[in-house]
Amino acid sequence: MSEPAGINLSTLGVMNVALEGSGYSGLVLEKLSSAGIKIGDRLKVKQDGRDFDGVLMPRSQVGTDPFHIVLKLDNGYNMGVKINPDSQITKGKGVRKAKQKSVETPTEDNPSLPTVSVLSTGGTIASRVDYRTGAVNPALTAQDLYDSVPELRDYANINAKVSMSILSENILMSDWTKIAKTVASEIRTGVDGVVIAHGTDTMGYTAAALSFALQDLPVPVTLVGSQRSSDRPSSDASLNLIGATNLVGHADVAEVMVLMHAQSDDSYLYAHRGTRVRKFHTSRRDAFQSINSYPLFKVEGIDIEELSSPLMRRKTDRKLKLKPKFEELVGLVKTFPGIKSDLINHYVSSGYRGIVLEGTGLGHVPELLQPSIKNAIDSGIVVAMTSQCYHGRVDMDVYRTGVELQDIGVIPCQDMIAETALVKLMWLLANTKTPEEVAIKMQASLVGEIEMRSEYPEYSADLGV
Amino acid sequence: MSEPAGINLSTLGVMNVALEGSGYSGLVLEKLSSAGIKIGDRLKVKQDGRDFDGVLMPRSQVGTDPFHIVLKLDNGYNMGVKINPDSQITKGKGVRKAKQKSVETPTEDNPSLPTVSVLSTGGTIASRVDYRTGAVNPALTAQDLYDSVPELRDYANINAKVSMSILSENILMSDWTKIAKTVASEIRTGVDGVVIAHGTDTMGYTAAALSFALQDLPVPVTLVGSQRSSDRPSSDASLNLIGATNLVGHADVAEVMVLMHAQSDDSYLYAHRGTRVRKFHTSRRDAFQSINSYPLFKVEGIDIEELSSPLMRRKTDRKLKLKPKFEELVGLVKTFPGIKSDLINHYVSSGYRGIVLEGTGLGHVPELLQPSIKNAIDSGIVVAMTSQCYHGRVDMDVYRTGVELQDIGVIPCQDMIAETALVKLMWLLANTKTPEEVAIKMQASLVGEIEMRSEYPEYSADLGV
Repeated sequence: MSEPAGINLSTLGVMNVALEGSGYSGLVLEKLSSAGIKIGDRLKVKQDGRDFDGVLMPRSQVGTDPFHIVLKLDNGYNMGVKINPDSQITKGKGVRKAKQKSVETPTEDNPSLPTVSVLSTGGTIASRVDYRTGAVNPALTAQDLYDSVPELRDYANINAKVSMSILSENILMSDWTKIAKTVASEIRTGVDGVVIAHGTDTMGYTAAALSFALQDLPVPVTLVGSQRSSDRPSSDASLNLIGATNLVGHADVAEVMVLMHAQSDDSYLYAHRGTRVRKFHTSRRDAFQSINSYPLFKVEGIDIEELSSPLMRRKTDRKLKLKPKFEELVGLVKTFPGIKSDLINHYVSSGYRGIVLEGTGLGHVPELLQPSIKNAIDSGIVVAMTSQCYHGRVDMDVYRTGVELQDIGVIPCQDMIAETALVKLMWLLANTKTPEEVAIKMQASLVGEIEMRSEYPEYSADLGV
Repeated sequence: MSEPAGINLSTLGVMNVALEGSGYSGLVLEKLSSAGIKIGDRLKVKQDGRDFDGVLMPRSQVGTDPFHIVLKLDNGYNMGVKINPDSQITKGKGVRKAKQKSVETPTEDNPSLPTVSVLSTGGTIASRVDYRTGAVNPALTAQDLYDSVPELRDYANINAKVSMSILSENILMSDWTKIAKTVASEIRTGVDGVVIAHGTDTMGYTAAALSFALQDLPVPVTLVGSQRSSDRPSSDASLNLIGATNLVGHADVAEVMVLMHAQSDDSYLYAHRGTRVRKFHTSRRDAFQSINSYPLFKVEGIDIEELSSPLMRRKTDRKLKLKPKFEELVGLVKTFPGIKSDLINHYVSSGYRGIVLEGTGLGHVPELLQPSIKNAIDSGIVVAMTSQCYHGRVDMDVYRTGVELQDIGVIPCQDMIAETALVKLMWLLANTKTPEEVAIKMQASLVGEIEMRSEYPEYSADLGV
């Protein structure tokens, strides 16, 4: 604790026990260590002619920059202070003492930065440990965001709003409707982009739902989640939030996207088109993959790189058309050896309006299901075909059985992933007048969910063996 | 057509119009071209003191070696002749003339080679164009194999058998039983390995079924398919058959495997463990991928390389235990936002004995399904949990909802893929005495379908961007 200023403890391999696990590193760790300051100590920062006085709080995230410290001020607010090499940090007197927060954040906006709305819906990314109570806080406020991730202030002025607080596996169509309406309200206030913090389990489904519900989108919307909660050293929450804010604040794009880690390390992030992405790993930080499509952007620090420009929709002055309704009576049937027609018959007798099949290969189902599928279609149910292969395109013209299914009215969904086809059918059935129109629109690309030619060459893991 | 012998036409970039599309290349193409021979011409081959006399047939496969020609002999049989640089090929008189085949092949066995049984069940790999009638032949005989792929003779003596001839999307549990019994019979005759030609749509499911049905397997069994039929220049049928024959004839392994292209080109093949593989692309030749596991072997020409030795089961003298029965009343339910409990209730009222859930993320379902799942389990139905993420492992201890599902009796399936869990539950319910035993065995690795630690680092596409 008595190292001279200017010596980097981590470089020297010296263990800083007092600040271990505090989330501080690099320059900040060095200066705090030199001054003998530990979490909960009162300190003073002098820099650029200004003084900051408060109690040192831990950083809950790793992968954040090594330049900010978080201070709890005597008025109860936390503040992120950017430290530079000339900053002087000295230990103050007294210990941690904080008032209860009572009013909303009075943070000043920076007029040179874009304005971004951050909506919280729940999930791992929206859970954080409250250092005052030790409790897990289920929702993000703007203040929570600034406390945890002071770097956000470098990218945008943030309007934070808690839309709901649920585990994403419990999301219903009515929640999609509510989120779509909230996003539309935010966009109509003139924000430059919207970030939606969401649980990862069904984030792909919600991204597809918003892609269809927010027609003629004028600004970017990105969903963002985290695979590791923010109290874990390996949390991806902070980098993902920073990346999402950077992206929607600064990129010329008007798509609904999902932004998550692109690699298992913190090197960079991908923004995937909302209709082309699914959660493909239970636990890795790069759990989300674009299917049959390239990601739209690579985000690496402050750099934003476009990856698939030709089909990208850009920011415009067009007026958002909100179409937030979804039909709830749509089923998803993954076929398998031994599947029986009772399942299809059950959907018919239960009054369902649509069924998305996840067939095998190019879009096949066991022939023994054909009579029940024909009966479903004759009963007015829209039946669409996708493939449980995920990668590639259904092609129901190659084999006789595919042709027969088309003859009885099954709609081939091209290279659309099953989850997107399900959400699209839910949306079309609530926003379209006739079954014929549903059939035509299921096979057309409305918001980039289908590509007529598959230009996407990569899909397999390169094992290097 | 008058190039001097010894000049390689393809190297010179000279188009050989007469033999274009014939399937011949390299040395053979060169010699045929030099002698002015085209498909259907009678010719004579002199080499190593022997004469071969017949009509030149096309090779239906690309990716085969450039050393064999196929001759139709006057007795009606086709024969593959391996050409070497010293072979003399001369044009004969007369044109194509062939008798109808009438008896089974009298091909002589080579005692220095292993004996391999090749069973045909149907699918693209078992369809070939008959050059005499133009019709598509739905089944492979040993003679068909030798005709199409003379190289097979270099790897093994082949016993060919047509087990069935169906499209793989129509495979039923009773077909798995029949295939398992046929494989067992072949193994009991003392063959060194078994190759099963199978349609690709459900090849992964059948591979899992055989993995469980053939307990204490003493020799290797590999399923093999093709993504492009053998009348197409891009067919993968030939290389996959050669690779499968080579593998089961020569590798020290006693697993049920799936062998297919590892890349979209013809460079090499992977043999995947039968319980760890799924069809992940609708059309690519490298459609099959190992999930949560490395492939067991890389096969490149005659070279066989082991990729994941530690857990490999080896050839032994142990006695095969055939357990070919499967319970048919098992359902697969992929959950999604908006799924209702009616589906679970339907399975209960229809007398189903098992349900495999494809939940979200680490193994979650909407909480509103919990009462119906509890009711199903209380009714004696075994309910098991997998993840629709495919990659990774379910972990139902992380979130409260997962713990609750375990409390009501849902069985977590570790890192087992959903399709394998479905097949395993079908098998356990037909071969196990109590629900408790089913629950214990679902969570244990019987034939490599579960690994207790996930050591498999790769899963994502390296986009190079």
